[in-house]
Amino acid sequence: LMVGGTVGKVAQSRNPAFHVGDFFAGYWGWQEYAVSDGKGLQKLDASLAPVSTALGVLGMPGMTAYFGFLDICQPKPGETVVVSGAAGAVGSLVGQIAKIKGCRAVGIAGSDDKVAWLTRELGFDGAFNYKTTEDYVAKLRNLCPQGIDCYFDNVGGSVTDAVLPVLNVRARISICGQISQYNLARPEPGVRPFIYLLNKQSRAEGFIISQFMDRFPEGIAQMAEWIKQGKLKYREQIVTGFENAPHALIGVLQGENTGKMLVKFAEA
Amino acid sequence: LMVGGTVGKVAQSRNPAFHVGDFFAGYWGWQEYAVSDGKGLQKLDASLAPVSTALGVLGMPGMTAYFGFLDICQPKPGETVVVSGAAGAVGSLVGQIAKIKGCRAVGIAGSDDKVAWLTRELGFDGAFNYKTTEDYVAKLRNLCPQGIDCYFDNVGGSVTDAVLPVLNVRARISICGQISQYNLARPEPGVRPFIYLLNKQSRAEGFIISQFMDRFPEGIAQMAEWIKQGKLKYREQIVTGFENAPHALIGVLQGENTGKMLVKFAEA
Repeated sequence: LMVGGTVGKVAQSRNPAFHVGDFFAGYWGWQEYAVSDGKGLQKLDASLAPVSTALGVLGMPGMTAYFGFLDICQPKPGETVVVSGAAGAVGSLVGQIAKIKGCRAVGIAGSDDKVAWLTRELGFDGAFNYKTTEDYVAKLRNLCPQGIDCYFDNVGGSVTDAVLPVLNVRARISICGQISQYNLARPEPGVRPFIYLLNKQSRAEGFIISQFMDRFPEGIAQMAEWIKQGKLKYREQIVTGFENAPHALIGVLQGENTGKMLVKFAEA
Repeated sequence: LMVGGTVGKVAQSRNPAFHVGDFFAGYWGWQEYAVSDGKGLQKLDASLAPVSTALGVLGMPGMTAYFGFLDICQPKPGETVVVSGAAGAVGSLVGQIAKIKGCRAVGIAGSDDKVAWLTRELGFDGAFNYKTTEDYVAKLRNLCPQGIDCYFDNVGGSVTDAVLPVLNVRARISICGQISQYNLARPEPGVRPFIYLLNKQSRAEGFIISQFMDRFPEGIAQMAEWIKQGKLKYREQIVTGFENAPHALIGVLQGENTGKMLVKFAEA
């Protein structure tokens, strides 16, 4: 079961903690109006940041990038970090956090526009379009002349296969998503990575963002600070209208979005 | 380059630290007589344990089992531990250490004799012969009704593929060897494990025993203690004569050994 994260405005309230007009983030799924008992809702301060950021850079995707990269990859200055799904809501933040931490950041994305956005606007040191690149391994060796120390994986499949031979000794892989594998009738056979992990004494670890729930305040504060300092940029792609939500979701699964995909049901 | 570990007796010495008749372990490779400047040699006390144990339970294989399992898998009492290559020099020790730590130990090996040795003599809770088992996943689910928390992998390939769907949340995999893959002309395609690691928030890590070199004294002391307490059994398979060394090595790669394979060149 997957439930989309949402931001909503209180339209009516019989709970003194919730006032009409207040903004909250929560998990109501795809509906225009929802009834809530107030549990699990996160109050938003619309004067601090646009409320939409609670679904992106200051919400789940932001926390996923922050903890999933920093905690699992433990990047050190001077290391090389590769991100797949690099133009997505999470990947675009991971590469920028890598730069903030003094690393070389290399992104893998699915269009020339995305690649240009990563290198020209977000400060990635290199990026390539996997749809128009034939030899991923050669491309990675070229963009990562010192090898790969950290890999933040959103996609899996043949892109990840190509990262394996370029890993350095004691590399760390954070497995955030495997979007290339989600809609397959059965998992497609591919490269078994354990021999690479063995030869390079490397580690791969999957995570779910709820592991880090207790530490969200730390992550939100740090990400908000980096945004204020101009060190972290984000993009939102907004589709309007309930009827366009299914296409928006399918678009994400097919890699059509740059940054966070949002569906707007009503004016704030 | 692989150099076989050896135990030798000093035949002649011009170094006051080495006396004729003393036993040492070191890396001279396959030769009947070797010249050494004394560097990297480990002096053996023949009265403490048979000198051959310096090549097995109190040597590299023992340290590999001890640190590669305890440090990387971090087993907790009550957890289920699966070991592939379970009847080998390393695997047979891992399962016994798992039992000492209060875990359920399940082994995967390549003959009915090995399976019987594991369960009847070494105290494994379960084991199966992968050469005569058709559905590895069903067998593992049957022998591990609570799922798999730790997997110590010596073999890789289709045996490891079958462990993945039985992993518990936050499982730990120690990648010690991938013997099924070493002699392939090219890696055979198989199951990509990252989606399993993601879904179960699990970790896989490769290691090389030299990482733990500084802590060998701790490992040797603990293993020797467990042997003295009768908690740890080991088996050595001794082939005699230089001319039989190549067959012995090929036998190991083909899984013909039970416990540590040794080649004896001379009487002590």
